[in-house]
Amino acid sequence: MLPWKSIITINRKEIRPVYLQISDAVIAEIMKGRIQKGLKMPGSRTMASTLCLNRKTVLQAYDELMAQGWMEIVPMKGTFIKQSLPEVKQQSLGDVLEIKSEAQTNSSKYDMPRGEHVIDDGTPDYRLAPIDDLLKTARSVSKGLVGKSVLLGNHFFGEASLRNNLSDYLSTTRAINGTKGNILITRGSQMAIYLAFAILLSKGDEVIVGQLNYHSADKAIKSTGGTLVKVPVTPEGLDLNVVEEKAKAGKIKAMYITPHHQYPTTVTMPVENRMRLLELAEKFDFYVIEDDYDYDYHYNRSPILPLASIDRNGRIIYIGSFSKILVPSIRIGYMFASESIIKKCGELRMIIDKLGDPIMERALAEMLANNDIDRFLKKAVNTYKERRDLFCKRLEEGLKEEITFTKPNGGMAVWVNFKNINIQDLVETAQIHKLTLKIDVYEHTNKACRFGFASMNLKEIETNTDLLIKAANAVLSQ
Amino acid sequence: MLPWKSIITINRKEIRPVYLQISDAVIAEIMKGRIQKGLKMPGSRTMASTLCLNRKTVLQAYDELMAQGWMEIVPMKGTFIKQSLPEVKQQSLGDVLEIKSEAQTNSSKYDMPRGEHVIDDGTPDYRLAPIDDLLKTARSVSKGLVGKSVLLGNHFFGEASLRNNLSDYLSTTRAINGTKGNILITRGSQMAIYLAFAILLSKGDEVIVGQLNYHSADKAIKSTGGTLVKVPVTPEGLDLNVVEEKAKAGKIKAMYITPHHQYPTTVTMPVENRMRLLELAEKFDFYVIEDDYDYDYHYNRSPILPLASIDRNGRIIYIGSFSKILVPSIRIGYMFASESIIKKCGELRMIIDKLGDPIMERALAEMLANNDIDRFLKKAVNTYKERRDLFCKRLEEGLKEEITFTKPNGGMAVWVNFKNINIQDLVETAQIHKLTLKIDVYEHTNKACRFGFASMNLKEIETNTDLLIKAANAVLSQ
Repeated sequence: MLPWKSIITINRKEIRPVYLQISDAVIAEIMKGRIQKGLKMPGSRTMASTLCLNRKTVLQAYDELMAQGWMEIVPMKGTFIKQSLPEVKQQSLGDVLEIKSEAQTNSSKYDMPRGEHVIDDGTPDYRLAPIDDLLKTARSVSKGLVGKSVLLGNHFFGEASLRNNLSDYLSTTRAINGTKGNILITRGSQMAIYLAFAILLSKGDEVIVGQLNYHSADKAIKSTGGTLVKVPVTPEGLDLNVVEEKAKAGKIKAMYITPHHQYPTTVTMPVENRMRLLELAEKFDFYVIEDDYDYDYHYNRSPILPLASIDRNGRIIYIGSFSKILVPSIRIGYMFASESIIKKCGELRMIIDKLGDPIMERALAEMLANNDIDRFLKKAVNTYKERRDLFCKRLEEGLKEEITFTKPNGGMAVWVNFKNINIQDLVETAQIHKLTLKIDVYEHTNKACRFGFASMNLKEIETNTDLLIKAANAVLSQ
Repeated sequence: MLPWKSIITINRKEIRPVYLQISDAVIAEIMKGRIQKGLKMPGSRTMASTLCLNRKTVLQAYDELMAQGWMEIVPMKGTFIKQSLPEVKQQSLGDVLEIKSEAQTNSSKYDMPRGEHVIDDGTPDYRLAPIDDLLKTARSVSKGLVGKSVLLGNHFFGEASLRNNLSDYLSTTRAINGTKGNILITRGSQMAIYLAFAILLSKGDEVIVGQLNYHSADKAIKSTGGTLVKVPVTPEGLDLNVVEEKAKAGKIKAMYITPHHQYPTTVTMPVENRMRLLELAEKFDFYVIEDDYDYDYHYNRSPILPLASIDRNGRIIYIGSFSKILVPSIRIGYMFASESIIKKCGELRMIIDKLGDPIMERALAEMLANNDIDRFLKKAVNTYKERRDLFCKRLEEGLKEEITFTKPNGGMAVWVNFKNINIQDLVETAQIHKLTLKIDVYEHTNKACRFGFASMNLKEIETNTDLLIKAANAVLSQ
């Protein structure tokens, strides 16, 4: 038996739950090659006694490893590290929840009417955001700082307290381990994307993106001199065989992906693919910009950890944002990368924008430290899960014959494929039914689109899906 | 006599004072060539009766025109538009104020100790800033907006209310006339500078700057592909003969200046030179980036109007900021330019940073509309004027034999020339005397530097100038 007690070290002072510390350690050993594929794992009782832990904790860890696709149970034989690291299956449609009145669980402000019928392509519900808490904290922060130098704004890489607290937060929530030297605070994720490409690219450098991609990222790449190399998106994210081909042939400098839920189709990149991608990045010397814009919104168990958590060679530039947690108008994002990348990006940022907003950054740091963000996210995730379930149920019931979709296990949107309906027609007909579809219409995929469910309350979902179904039927009967 | 009544139209609904409306109109006519150099102006009584105004108002307007260098009195003959548009003389040292206790006029927070002795190179006193008012307004703005779409931040060029109110503010305070379509709200002036050069420059394009220049502007120029072409700075700003030479010879695409008080030497560009520069820009097809970072701080009469106020061909990209009025950490700046320039810059800004801070922008718009900013500025200007006077008096008395300087008529800093003292030595020796000089040491001018007076209260000025004089004497006796 492997020396499990020395492989898996538990630190009870860490905020990250013990069962996740176990699964982190096992994943890290697999990555290092010290735990081989096909290895039979000790039974949960044995492991628990070896590690001096409750058996329940070990079972939780094993569950996590199986859910993420690292381990499997072979009936009558036991639990094994998978031979081929498997695909992560999207959860199938099922266990649809009863409609509960949201007013029972949430405060009445959620029911505030918007005055118009809108389905967007996946934004948070700003009515839920703790924006007043943030501004209240900001005021008290600024009062406490009168006479101190923070208002002069000398912290060009972001407020030290936010960089420190964020470093803890990233470690606890997604096993990305580093120090404040690995973190640059930016204006939302957009600035982080721009800075990353601006320091990486010279004119004509090639950047791999999905055939369908986040258009603001495409623009940042082109604006900083890059050339887009488009790769098909499969149900497992970007097609890595094509990526390898392109990398062999050309001068690929970087790649932009959103592996947690690929934008816009929401597919998740399986663990196996993530490891292969890291190998490709090293072999062909390119950087991967991992935009993890909606990591915090996951509705089943813990999501697959980001590539940045298993990156050992500084190939990943990890980008996140609080704009999706708070509101789009609070523009605080961040980059996690090697210190040399952070330094280069920080220096360019000083030229573009000097510095961020020290008061808001301090306020956010306080809210992170007090677990205010955490508490808010827990509430929001429950709310959004309910909304996802209702939205998917209504779509399924109302447009059964016409659409297919996979219920997403996270994020704020569903990717819906239509059989006969052209999306442009749908948008126009919906408008006649007083429903505004604030969605992108894609050139290459005119029969699929992205519907957001998070920004509508349950009543709005009922009203808006009714209108959507009417509009769809109207298009069909044309 | 000219048809003065039709030339000078007074609009009593405008916020800009009537006497300034008169001087604006006269200047505009001179620019258009409809009022000729050497023209004898009607006497103030005649003009007052023609315009149906109080004579005092006309006298104020004439005073303004003379102070700005457009008009002159020829004894026994009358008042004339100047033949050669004259230099603007720096006010000579004189009328030094008595030291008043600031505590008498200002609230006690101004006296809050800083805990260290610092002379910087010209920043505002953040202890005076109405930062709490701004955050209070921001909170009430955000509360009023729950359920409204502003939090989604769709106003990519800046909040409409701020662009509108700023448009009025620019017209009232500096005769820059335009609509919100001419305005882009940015993160402080730095982003405006970056955007302007990013859209104007291709790799290798030449940009004229002062031999000594604001280093963040130099960096923005280089980072966007530009090549610096350095031109000597005379007591009248950049040497325009050299500018013309360079423009004839090379491929000058743009020029960066701070004509109100050239950074760092604080010299003011006279009206005559401004007009010539506009002509050169047209003739040789280049843009002038006019960074007017400290326009609002002037201590005598109204300052010379910005180049943007007399620009008829969209050659000027005018840049301003509220960070010097509030605190460096509130990063709200703006660009005023032709609509096509604004559009290009706004589109790039969306790629870099999506949008600004709609809540803060709304709060600032409210403060502009309520004249809160105006009231604050009046108080701040009085305070800074007192500080300037004391600082200059102490320097003069303590280092009479060693230094020369011109007392600045605005801004937050004095440019001081030393006879024998090397600035690097001074910085090091001051540190021994527990005085930190947060100033730049210039390669080409190691016997001159820029001292800020605005961020110290009167007591601090006394203490810090004592320390500075001691340090200077210590260097001299080495």
